[in-house]
Amino acid sequence: MAIFFATFTKPTMARKEPDGQIADTGNPYSIGVFNYAHQGKKMAKGITKRSEDYSQWYLDVIAQAKLADHAPVRGCMVIRPNGYAIWERMQAELDRMFKESGHVNAYFPLFIPESYLKKEAEHVEGFAPECAMVTHGGGKKLEEPLVVRPTSETVVWSMYKDWIQSYRDLPLLINQWANVVRWEMRTRLFLRTMEFLWQEGHTAHATAEEAQEETLRILGIYKRFAEEFMAMPVLTGVKTEKERFAGAINTYAIEAMMQDKRALQAGTSHNLGQNFAKAFEVMFQSESGSREYVWATSWGVSTRLIGGLIMSHSDDNGLVVPPKLAPLQVVVVPIWKSDDEKSAVMQKIDGLTASWKDKFRYKIDDRDNYRPGWKFNEWEKQGVPIRIEMGPKDLESGEVVLVRRDTGEKERISQDRITEETETRLTAMQQSLFDTALALRENNTFEVDDYDELKERLNGEGGFFRVHWNGKRDSEDRLQAETKATIRVMNPDEPEEAGKCIVTGEPSKRRVVVAKAY
Amino acid sequence: MAIFFATFTKPTMARKEPDGQIADTGNPYSIGVFNYAHQGKKMAKGITKRSEDYSQWYLDVIAQAKLADHAPVRGCMVIRPNGYAIWERMQAELDRMFKESGHVNAYFPLFIPESYLKKEAEHVEGFAPECAMVTHGGGKKLEEPLVVRPTSETVVWSMYKDWIQSYRDLPLLINQWANVVRWEMRTRLFLRTMEFLWQEGHTAHATAEEAQEETLRILGIYKRFAEEFMAMPVLTGVKTEKERFAGAINTYAIEAMMQDKRALQAGTSHNLGQNFAKAFEVMFQSESGSREYVWATSWGVSTRLIGGLIMSHSDDNGLVVPPKLAPLQVVVVPIWKSDDEKSAVMQKIDGLTASWKDKFRYKIDDRDNYRPGWKFNEWEKQGVPIRIEMGPKDLESGEVVLVRRDTGEKERISQDRITEETETRLTAMQQSLFDTALALRENNTFEVDDYDELKERLNGEGGFFRVHWNGKRDSEDRLQAETKATIRVMNPDEPEEAGKCIVTGEPSKRRVVVAKAY
Repeated sequence: MAIFFATFTKPTMARKEPDGQIADTGNPYSIGVFNYAHQGKKMAKGITKRSEDYSQWYLDVIAQAKLADHAPVRGCMVIRPNGYAIWERMQAELDRMFKESGHVNAYFPLFIPESYLKKEAEHVEGFAPECAMVTHGGGKKLEEPLVVRPTSETVVWSMYKDWIQSYRDLPLLINQWANVVRWEMRTRLFLRTMEFLWQEGHTAHATAEEAQEETLRILGIYKRFAEEFMAMPVLTGVKTEKERFAGAINTYAIEAMMQDKRALQAGTSHNLGQNFAKAFEVMFQSESGSREYVWATSWGVSTRLIGGLIMSHSDDNGLVVPPKLAPLQVVVVPIWKSDDEKSAVMQKIDGLTASWKDKFRYKIDDRDNYRPGWKFNEWEKQGVPIRIEMGPKDLESGEVVLVRRDTGEKERISQDRITEETETRLTAMQQSLFDTALALRENNTFEVDDYDELKERLNGEGGFFRVHWNGKRDSEDRLQAETKATIRVMNPDEPEEAGKCIVTGEPSKRRVVVAKAY
Repeated sequence: MAIFFATFTKPTMARKEPDGQIADTGNPYSIGVFNYAHQGKKMAKGITKRSEDYSQWYLDVIAQAKLADHAPVRGCMVIRPNGYAIWERMQAELDRMFKESGHVNAYFPLFIPESYLKKEAEHVEGFAPECAMVTHGGGKKLEEPLVVRPTSETVVWSMYKDWIQSYRDLPLLINQWANVVRWEMRTRLFLRTMEFLWQEGHTAHATAEEAQEETLRILGIYKRFAEEFMAMPVLTGVKTEKERFAGAINTYAIEAMMQDKRALQAGTSHNLGQNFAKAFEVMFQSESGSREYVWATSWGVSTRLIGGLIMSHSDDNGLVVPPKLAPLQVVVVPIWKSDDEKSAVMQKIDGLTASWKDKFRYKIDDRDNYRPGWKFNEWEKQGVPIRIEMGPKDLESGEVVLVRRDTGEKERISQDRITEETETRLTAMQQSLFDTALALRENNTFEVDDYDELKERLNGEGGFFRVHWNGKRDSEDRLQAETKATIRVMNPDEPEEAGKCIVTGEPSKRRVVVAKAY
C-alpha cells in the first residue's frame, strides 16, 4: 500500500457544515495550516462511498484522481495536471464554438480602479462585499485602491467607450479567458473557490433585439456544450430578480442535477440592457445618424464545470470522464512476467495501435516499476474511459480484454477489430453517461403543490420540484429561509398554467424549478 | 479621413525619457487620466516614421494595428483582439513544443502569502520591491498580506513538497499559462507592463545534471520558436550574476536585436539548483534509498514577445507579421462598381479559394461600406502577409494582383496558380524576414577593444559590441553607469581568447555582448 499512497499525502482540508455541505476549514486569514479532518470510512482505493458521505466522496475523488489541491491561501486551489488537462479540453471545445459564432478573444487587465466598480449602482452592490483589494504597490500605499477583478464589465465598458463610435463598430463580440477573484467564505474545490478560471464574454449591439438574441445564442452554446461534451443534461431558463447578475436586466442559466439531486448552476448568460453603456457613457451613431446607447450582454462558464463533471458521472471507484473530454481516452496495459514476454507483447501492441495517433488520445502504460493491478486501479481512479489489457496468452488467442470505465464491463474482443470496437465503446459510453444522468433527473423531478410536502421532500430524498410561485420577492425569500432551497430557473417558453403559489396560495401562472443547490 | 480614424480615438499615452526611450506618463497612482502627448509628424496612415521617432513609431504601429491599448490603471494593458490573436498563435506553437518534450500544464494560485516569498533569501530581495499587495478581502483587513504573484516559484515549491516523495515522482515537468504582476515604474506596451501574460515552467529533477539539461533544452525550444516562428534571430548565452534571476544559480537567455539596434531579452531559462528545494524542504527518496534535495529549473516567455515581433519586422506602413504567426495570412479584396460586377467577382473568388480552408488562414473582405483603397491600407497596417486584389478586368485576363506585405512587391499571377503562388510567397516571406533581421544583427555586431570607442559607438549608431570583460561585478557596474548599456549574454561554448577587460584593462579570457537594451 505504500506505493499506492505515494503521492497522496496532503489530507483533504474539509469539515462538514450543518446542512451536510462541506467547506474548507480554518479562519479566513489562516494561511498554510491544514487541519487533519476525519477521513471517514474508505474503501481500499481511498475513496469514501457516496452512500456514506457524499461530500467526502467528492473530495476523495478529486484527491485520488489528482485533479486539484488546496493552495496555501485559504479558499484558493491548485489545479493539478490531471484536472487542468480536462479544463484544456473544455476550453478547446468552447473556444471553437465561440469562434464559429463570430467571437474573438482579447485580454482585459486584472486590476480595476475602485471608482470604476461604483459606476453601475447594482453592480457594485453585488460585488463590492466579495472583492480583494490591492492597497500597496512597489512598496507604497496607493492613492486609490485597486479591485482584483471579480468580473470585468466595468473595465471592459470603459474601453468600449473608446472603441465604439459608429454602427460600423457593432456588434462587438469579445471573449476573454482569465482568472477572477471573489472573496468567498465557504469554498469547495472547483465548485466555489476564491480564485477561479473562467471565460467571460462581453458583447455590444446596436439594438435590444440583437442583445437578446446573443444572450440566448450563448445559452444555447452552453447547453450544447454541457450535453454533447460533458454528457450533463441541463435545464435552461431565466433566473428570478433575486438571483439575477448584479447589473443585468435578465440572467439566463443552465442548471444540472448532480448525483445527490442537488442543482448546480453551470453557466450564465446575461442581457445587460443599456445599464453599462449608460454608466460608462458608451454611445454610437446609428445608420440614420442618431446617437444612441449601446446594448450589452455578458456570459461565463468557469472551472466550476469540472466540479459538475465530477458529480455527474463519477462513482465509488473514482473519477469517470466522458470520452469527448477525457484527456486520455484509452489506456493499454501490457502484462508480462519476463523480458521476452514484455517485448513480444509490446511488439504486438505497437502494431495494433499503429493507426491510433489521429484517432484516440491514448497511452501504453509499460512502466516497469508498477504491477498491472496497481495500474488498473490507478487509471480507474483517474477516469480513463477504456482500458485494454493484453498479456502473453492473448498473443495466442488473438484477443484482448477491454474494460469500460462506466459500466466496469469486461469483454474479450478480437485483435483484428480492436480499433473499431474501441471507437464503438467510446461512442456508447458518451451516450450512456448522458442517458443515465438524464434518467436521474427525470426520475427525480416532481410536481408538488403542497408546501409541507415540498419541505419534507426537499429535506428527504431531494430532487427538482416544479412548483407554482406568485413571482414576488417576499415569497421567494420565505421559501428560501424555510426550505434552504432556491428557485433555480423559470422557463418562459412553457405554456401558462393556472395554479396557486406554493408559499402564499396567491394566483400563479407558471411553475418554477425549486431545489437545493451548490 | 473621418472613417479612417474612426476607431483610433484614444491618443497614445507617452512621453520621451531623457535617454530617448519612452515611458507612460502620469504619476504611479494616477488612474484613468490620459495626457494628450505630442503626436509628432505622422504619415497619412497615422504612423510616425522610424527615422523621425522610433519610440513613437512603435506606439503608432500598435495603435493603428489595434494590438493593444492602455488600461485605466497606469502601466496595465488591454490586449485587443488583433494583438491577442497573435498571442494565441504563439501559445499554440509553444504549448505544442512543451508538450512534445514531456511537459504538462497546471494552474497555481494568483495569491501567495507574504511569508512564502521570504523563504528564499535572494528571491524576496529581487521581487519584494515590485510586488502588489492585497491587504483587504471581503471587507476585512487580512492578518497576513497576500502578494499578487510576480512569479510562482514559492507557491509551486510549497506544493511540490507534497507531490514529491520518491524518485518515481521525478522528473516533474509542469508549465502554467498565467498572468503575473510586477510593479514597474516605467512601462511600455507589451515590452514592460505592470501585469503581463506569460508561461512559467517549473520542473523538478533527481540530479543536478538533469536540471542543467532541462535548462538548456528549454533554451533551445525558445531559440527555435523565436527563429522558426517569429523569424527573429537570437543569441543564446548565460547572464552575468548581476542579471541573474533572483534565486537561480544560472540564468540563460535568448537576446534579439531590434531595428533600432537595441537588445531585447525575449526569454529566460533558469537553473535553480537546490535553492528552492532547500527553502521549502522538498526532498525525495532516491533509488538507492537516500534522502536528497530536489533539483529545479524555471523558465518563461511573455507577451513581451509581441513587442519583439513588432520591433523586428514592422515598417513605416505599420505592422508586419511573419506568416507562421499571422492570425490572418491572406486577405482577398474584391473590386467592383456594380452589384453585377460584385457577384461575378465574388463567384470567381469563391471558386479560387474553395480549397483554402485547411491551407491558409484567410479572409475575403467583401464589406460594402468601405472602398478598396481603404481596405488595402487597413490590412497593410495590420500586417497581413499577402493581399490579393481581383476586379472585373481580372475575370477576363485570368489573373489576380498579389501584394507581399514585407516587400510591397506587386505581381500579376495566373488564377490557375493562385494557391501554389500564395503558398510560395508565404514561405518566401517567412524566410526573408528572418534573413533581413539576421543581416541587421550581423552588420551591427562589432568587436571593440577601446573603452572610449565603445562609449562613442553605443551612443552613436549603436549595435551589439563584443568586448572583453574581467568577469567582475564592479567593472560591470561601471560599464553600465558610464554607457547606459549592459552585458546581455556570455557564450560559455565560445573558445577562450586572451584579452584585456575593456573597462579596467585587467586580463580577460572571453568576450561578452554589450548593448543598450529594452
